[in-house]
Amino acid sequence: MSTESKVDVLIIGAGPAGLMCAQGLNRAGVKVRIVDQRPKRVAAGQADGIQPRTVEVLQSYGLAERLLREGNQLHMAAFYNPSPNGGIERTDRTPDVTAPSARYPHEVTLHQGAIEAIFVDSMRERGLEVDRPIIPTSLELSTEESELKDPNAYPVKVELKHLEDNTTETVRAKFVVGSDGAHSWVRKTLGITMDGEQTDYIWGVVDMIPDTDFPDIRNRCAIHSNNGSCMIIPREGDKVRLYVQLSEKEVHVDPETGRVDRKKFGPEQVMEVARKSLKPYYIDKVGEVDWWTIYIIGQRVASKFSAHERVFIAGDACHTHSPKAGQGMNASMNDTHNLVWKMTHVLRGWADISLLKTYEFERRKYAQDLINFDKKFSALFSGKPRTEDNQDGVSHEQFLEAFQTFGAFSSGIGIHYTSSVVVQPAHQSFATNQTVGMRILPHVFIRAADARPYELQDLLPADTRFKILVFAGNTANASQLDRVKVLAENVETGVLKKFGNEVFDILSISSAHKEKVNYTDLPEVFRSHWSKVLLDDEDMFKRSGSGKGYEYYGIDTEKGAVVIVRPDGYVGMIAPFEKVEDIETYFAGFMIPRS
Amino acid sequence: MSTESKVDVLIIGAGPAGLMCAQGLNRAGVKVRIVDQRPKRVAAGQADGIQPRTVEVLQSYGLAERLLREGNQLHMAAFYNPSPNGGIERTDRTPDVTAPSARYPHEVTLHQGAIEAIFVDSMRERGLEVDRPIIPTSLELSTEESELKDPNAYPVKVELKHLEDNTTETVRAKFVVGSDGAHSWVRKTLGITMDGEQTDYIWGVVDMIPDTDFPDIRNRCAIHSNNGSCMIIPREGDKVRLYVQLSEKEVHVDPETGRVDRKKFGPEQVMEVARKSLKPYYIDKVGEVDWWTIYIIGQRVASKFSAHERVFIAGDACHTHSPKAGQGMNASMNDTHNLVWKMTHVLRGWADISLLKTYEFERRKYAQDLINFDKKFSALFSGKPRTEDNQDGVSHEQFLEAFQTFGAFSSGIGIHYTSSVVVQPAHQSFATNQTVGMRILPHVFIRAADARPYELQDLLPADTRFKILVFAGNTANASQLDRVKVLAENVETGVLKKFGNEVFDILSISSAHKEKVNYTDLPEVFRSHWSKVLLDDEDMFKRSGSGKGYEYYGIDTEKGAVVIVRPDGYVGMIAPFEKVEDIETYFAGFMIPRS
Repeated sequence: MSTESKVDVLIIGAGPAGLMCAQGLNRAGVKVRIVDQRPKRVAAGQADGIQPRTVEVLQSYGLAERLLREGNQLHMAAFYNPSPNGGIERTDRTPDVTAPSARYPHEVTLHQGAIEAIFVDSMRERGLEVDRPIIPTSLELSTEESELKDPNAYPVKVELKHLEDNTTETVRAKFVVGSDGAHSWVRKTLGITMDGEQTDYIWGVVDMIPDTDFPDIRNRCAIHSNNGSCMIIPREGDKVRLYVQLSEKEVHVDPETGRVDRKKFGPEQVMEVARKSLKPYYIDKVGEVDWWTIYIIGQRVASKFSAHERVFIAGDACHTHSPKAGQGMNASMNDTHNLVWKMTHVLRGWADISLLKTYEFERRKYAQDLINFDKKFSALFSGKPRTEDNQDGVSHEQFLEAFQTFGAFSSGIGIHYTSSVVVQPAHQSFATNQTVGMRILPHVFIRAADARPYELQDLLPADTRFKILVFAGNTANASQLDRVKVLAENVETGVLKKFGNEVFDILSISSAHKEKVNYTDLPEVFRSHWSKVLLDDEDMFKRSGSGKGYEYYGIDTEKGAVVIVRPDGYVGMIAPFEKVEDIETYFAGFMIPRS
Repeated sequence: MSTESKVDVLIIGAGPAGLMCAQGLNRAGVKVRIVDQRPKRVAAGQADGIQPRTVEVLQSYGLAERLLREGNQLHMAAFYNPSPNGGIERTDRTPDVTAPSARYPHEVTLHQGAIEAIFVDSMRERGLEVDRPIIPTSLELSTEESELKDPNAYPVKVELKHLEDNTTETVRAKFVVGSDGAHSWVRKTLGITMDGEQTDYIWGVVDMIPDTDFPDIRNRCAIHSNNGSCMIIPREGDKVRLYVQLSEKEVHVDPETGRVDRKKFGPEQVMEVARKSLKPYYIDKVGEVDWWTIYIIGQRVASKFSAHERVFIAGDACHTHSPKAGQGMNASMNDTHNLVWKMTHVLRGWADISLLKTYEFERRKYAQDLINFDKKFSALFSGKPRTEDNQDGVSHEQFLEAFQTFGAFSSGIGIHYTSSVVVQPAHQSFATNQTVGMRILPHVFIRAADARPYELQDLLPADTRFKILVFAGNTANASQLDRVKVLAENVETGVLKKFGNEVFDILSISSAHKEKVNYTDLPEVFRSHWSKVLLDDEDMFKRSGSGKGYEYYGIDTEKGAVVIVRPDGYVGMIAPFEKVEDIETYFAGFMIPRS
């Protein structure tokens, strides 16, 4: 007996990439199904680092609060190097994050299971559960061109096997997302190859509660010792993760499989190496090891991210790299964050199906940058430290420079999507500090109606709508207010009429002062609700950091500009008031006009 | 059939005072029962303003987050006066709150039912429900001196009647709290009189969603018009509350009862008066009126707040006044916040029963100050505005000065408990800016172990423990570190040994720099966990406002001082390191030494 059903999107794999995808589509009202082969959620270990940009993204779905409540925060990084007296000594302490515009200027550490729970609980509130344990057994994609181009067609047929009772079912889907990990069945079934190679860096990982006199045990530590490198990642509660560099002398690598023999080397041995590297400090564990692993770093990117933009792969299925810069879970979630709004727009009939090509365009380039970053960082991290006897080793200055240079990238803040139908940098000069293709800079503005400070990002939720930010300039000036009124009419009769009000959310931001300005001055199309008018001014107590926003974004305080923010929080284009037609052209590049 | 049961504390009345009391005692593990005569919680209207200090207090119980999420915030106040052209015009906009040290520099508005729900839901999680509808029918207090002085005795006997099935029961309680409102049955039963009088100010109140072109509809507005005064309080969602001054000409006051005849004057009439006062702006309502009332201001304080410190009254049962400064709910919750820890300490056998005398001492003085404040503020608010024709009227400058002068008081930030067994100001000079008897000033410090910024108030939860804040001075200096070690030994062998570790939570705050200091430097008694050591330094990104804390509190950066914070967040005493014996003397004044 086999049942057959239809779904808009079938997601295979309920790790961070799959769950981000499922919750986003579910929130957008898309008919979605998510299946996973594991009978239960991850209980310990695995990925654990959330980067600053990922916290911003989670916040845009309303999910950051719980992450911040449950997770640990890394604010400080400490660097240790060989001491002339033997053992190690502290060389430096610096900020852990080097991305000045980060809204959350720290990493968050929390085990993957707890992060998955945030998604799962949020989906459950909306009636969506992960179906498990289920594995896909076959996937067929239509070869009919007309079917592949029709967003309403179901060109993908997947057979699923329920592991608990061995029943099978057939699912016909408009789209499939394979977020099924480094050994992705979807990727292999599509015949997509992984480009790149395995390194000879071997690392051991142990999660535990430490007993130690090491004074930086609650900071992120990069330790270069003569006994090998070591990294400390403090975690939620009193837990700490140790990454310990191992050598082929210590562990046995099976030449056939290229994998480490886990029978001969376990967590006790990893701890023993750490103990030596941390001298003169002592470190032991309280109770049992929470989780452990040993791995050899591979650095690979999938050659393609989709088959005909009907079956996609995302997350570890497209990229594998070292875990030490805490990127894995972040890259994965941001893959599907990029995909969710695009799929939704296509499924709603708002956007042309060709929009989906920008997923691979934007995320594959990012994955390649990630591997390049990882190669440099891993080499420096795994290298021997510079000492009197080893002048060719890695010096602290060299390592710190790399750590800080890569900071913008590893924080996720530096992600920059280049020109495409959804990224149009022509009028960049009208907001000189807000790069088109990068995420909208966080900044606090006050609401005109009640002077309450708001972080702009919080007013731009990931609700699938494009946000039109009308930096209205100095509306206390009558001639500027006239320009704003003309703009309002052009926007209303242009973009809104052509593509539909429901696609857009409009916020206006005046540079006039709170003591004088009335929110009622703005044209109605720019204040659909009293809360939609903001001011670039200090709050009543000058505490929130509000004010000087125009300057921060590089926008003319008198004349203003229009900034278009994509549903995923990245700036799609900028336009001066007089080029309102370019905004229409931008949207016409991927959206379907009404009637 | 009548049942009989025993309880530590019986609370009569589940309004804000009763609920604060119940949740606090419940959280502290006290056996508590709370009954109310209403079959259901308040659904709309009633009190709605939460002042800055009350938000701090709610935060100390972990309840502020929901309040802030659901409530509206008032940041700006606008003042309107008669325009020479007829109607009104805006005279000024100022901060709504004038208390620079307020952690939350705004009022929060949310209807009483939603605020009660925060308490009720939090209690439910811990297994405590409000029993309703129930009324007390008799209350007997033992006259035996020995029983009255014995904290383990049950000297109060209360008969309760269940209104739904007319059954009765007898409850024997160690303590009873009467938080049963302005017409308190408990107060009347104890024969406690109310001192004060009724005014001739009559006000109408309407809650509704407005349709208006008035540009300050989302600010708190004080409007003095020639048609009478009016106050606007924006509320959660799009709701707004209007307070409208009425005259005896407009409403009929029954000379017998002193109450307004509600048959002849309703919400439409109140709206009509508001409409006239707001001209030239128009105001109407969208849909139905949410809630309304008319009242005559009474200003009274109960002559006593307890009978033999076994039966207490709290909230509206002890004080009535005008609602316009948004004080009612705040005074009520802070009454029982003051009482909860004292009762808990007595019930646990930690403190002598005489500690409970400080409840009336501290809260009755506050209530009297409140009435004095209210008299002045109401007179100014209800007074005619100064105009060309009425030079004796209230000028804007006069009103604004009063508004700002009273700001510290009305925000709750200015509450100052004077000398008593729990307030010992002898060593005030060792923390010149932190007044003994006032709440601990909020300030951000960073944790020594991980440089994460924390608001100090968040580390001082209302968990019934006294907090010992060891401002350890410059611990990078060896001789100062020696002083700290001596202090640690004195605290360990003195206060901790004498009164028990479980009564105290110790935090240490070093003034040394984050790049150099190790949390492991501090003596163990001052770092029972790695999170217990703080630094007075800027965070890694200089964003949280941390740093210069010693200066802010007026404490010597090199030499430090010890600050004792009561379980309710008020500073009980300050001592230099060398006067550690005075700390013992302070606690010996109301606590019972072990063995």
